[in-house]
Amino acid sequence: MSNTNNTNAPFIVADIGGTNARFGLVDIPIASTNPNAAALTVSQQKKYPSSSFSGIDEAVKCYLESLQGIAVSGACLAVAGPVGNDNVTLTNLKWNFSISELKQQLNLDKLVIMNDFAAYACATPHIDEQHIIEINQGKPVENAPIAVVGPGTGFGVASLSYSNGQRIVAACEGGHMSLATHNAMQQQVINVLRDNFAHISIESLLSGPGLANLYQALAIVDSLRLAPLKPSEITKKALEDESSFSAKVLSVFCRWLGQACGDIALAQGAQAAVYLGGGILLRFPEFLKQSEFLEGFCDKGHMRDYLSDIPIKLVTESNSALIGAAYYYHQAEGV
Amino acid sequence: MSNTNNTNAPFIVADIGGTNARFGLVDIPIASTNPNAAALTVSQQKKYPSSSFSGIDEAVKCYLESLQGIAVSGACLAVAGPVGNDNVTLTNLKWNFSISELKQQLNLDKLVIMNDFAAYACATPHIDEQHIIEINQGKPVENAPIAVVGPGTGFGVASLSYSNGQRIVAACEGGHMSLATHNAMQQQVINVLRDNFAHISIESLLSGPGLANLYQALAIVDSLRLAPLKPSEITKKALEDESSFSAKVLSVFCRWLGQACGDIALAQGAQAAVYLGGGILLRFPEFLKQSEFLEGFCDKGHMRDYLSDIPIKLVTESNSALIGAAYYYHQAEGV
Repeated sequence: MSNTNNTNAPFIVADIGGTNARFGLVDIPIASTNPNAAALTVSQQKKYPSSSFSGIDEAVKCYLESLQGIAVSGACLAVAGPVGNDNVTLTNLKWNFSISELKQQLNLDKLVIMNDFAAYACATPHIDEQHIIEINQGKPVENAPIAVVGPGTGFGVASLSYSNGQRIVAACEGGHMSLATHNAMQQQVINVLRDNFAHISIESLLSGPGLANLYQALAIVDSLRLAPLKPSEITKKALEDESSFSAKVLSVFCRWLGQACGDIALAQGAQAAVYLGGGILLRFPEFLKQSEFLEGFCDKGHMRDYLSDIPIKLVTESNSALIGAAYYYHQAEGV
Repeated sequence: MSNTNNTNAPFIVADIGGTNARFGLVDIPIASTNPNAAALTVSQQKKYPSSSFSGIDEAVKCYLESLQGIAVSGACLAVAGPVGNDNVTLTNLKWNFSISELKQQLNLDKLVIMNDFAAYACATPHIDEQHIIEINQGKPVENAPIAVVGPGTGFGVASLSYSNGQRIVAACEGGHMSLATHNAMQQQVINVLRDNFAHISIESLLSGPGLANLYQALAIVDSLRLAPLKPSEITKKALEDESSFSAKVLSVFCRWLGQACGDIALAQGAQAAVYLGGGILLRFPEFLKQSEFLEGFCDKGHMRDYLSDIPIKLVTESNSALIGAAYYYHQAEGV
């Protein structure tokens, strides 16, 4: 077991989701007086299929062993599931563990468990400009909260705040907010779906699987008989032919996503920035930019100016949770 | 001018809204090592009509003069308007001022300007149990954010977080989120209003004036010819006769308010608590408790358990912004 009391030893970070468990090693910067200013890098990155392990302890031990004797001072594990008290369940893997027991099992001095989307959120302010596409320039309000929104398999939401240089991150469940409408067409879509969904949330229509739901519902609204398409097929067709039904669906998707992001920004008071992450948007960044996403975002009556002042950034860096976990641990542990 | 460099001298707090300007004096607790643990009290409270002043400097000077020579170390003024940079506008009074210029004009060493609903939010954790009605007991998640929601003339929203004992408050604009629906009846209400509103927000229906809008729209949905009623008339009739149309309107209001509060809690990840404030709910606390408010709050598909674990507290203390400003200043200035 690679374990030491030397707090200058590196720590490990992980991003453990339903499909993959990613790991990395982070060196503690020398003489860092301000944990936020220090630049952290993640080395020795490894990726394993999560299904090859029976539990989180096995996964971490496997990575620690791969380090071949490098001493580590602690670990920050970002996991796909809600983190509240000592007991944590990874939603898709059905792995259940106690944080305090895991710390003992791994023989670690320090162990931090955090939500994976919260880790992703912690990375956003550290992402290099070259990995960002600007959707709205805006005029950020200093020290205001940052909203992080990620439509993918689900719809991740987090909030980042700073106070006296200290970061506070909150994992939110904004993807499960009820989906509001701005016009009659959107309302017809909701009416079509009302009977089939116990609750029509943002995630129901504005995620990867949601895009397929939207395609089906809009076809019914338009009285078209169309076979279901996979989300990747819809985006492919939309990009190939701008007069296609898929392109119409993707346009509606983008505008509606803007409206939902506007609601989240208002609820969080996210006047510093909205970061867009998650896998699906990277399939059509230019389409998104040309779409009515921004109009939907700002279309909130006399809050238009407030919203158009919020910078919106699309993150193209796909492996951010590890670096976010590194920054979170670095601040939380004051190392 | 009452001004001193003595940081042990008391500071003043204010809650300056469109109608009233309230002031008070706060003594610095002796030997307080933890600013969050100290109990602060506001003395020498005075209330003036805001319209009797031509600007904020005049209002503060008037109060300082009333103190008859008591030395003050600084001021924390909570104002009804957005606070972002040095320039502040009080929305309803059309008072515009620069924070740095005001500080000079008042000859104060320390001046903090904050949003009034943010000040209200800062007070909530310090409100005595006797001024709280429990709407949902829940199981709070420690260190999670707190949402503060206040339907009144408008619909105030704020978020409170803690990190290492340090408070971070964000003034939000959640009242301007698009209003979502959970059923066909609510959708009919939206359809009735769609033509008359540029944007149908939470505030459009779930505030004092919103209750009157809801009354009118529900009457149209039910094909009733009814003269408009003032919000206070609707609540009065509803409480007098539970079979009245007003009682039906108020029931719909409560359920829909629950749904909107649920969305705000999800967007903020407010697993520690939701505090309900604002004037209108205090007219019918028992009706609210007996209503479907909580069912609306929890009615978010598989997030039901997450939401039913969030404690919901109705604040009956009406003058909280002063005490919130006191706590905010006390922490911000480390005094």
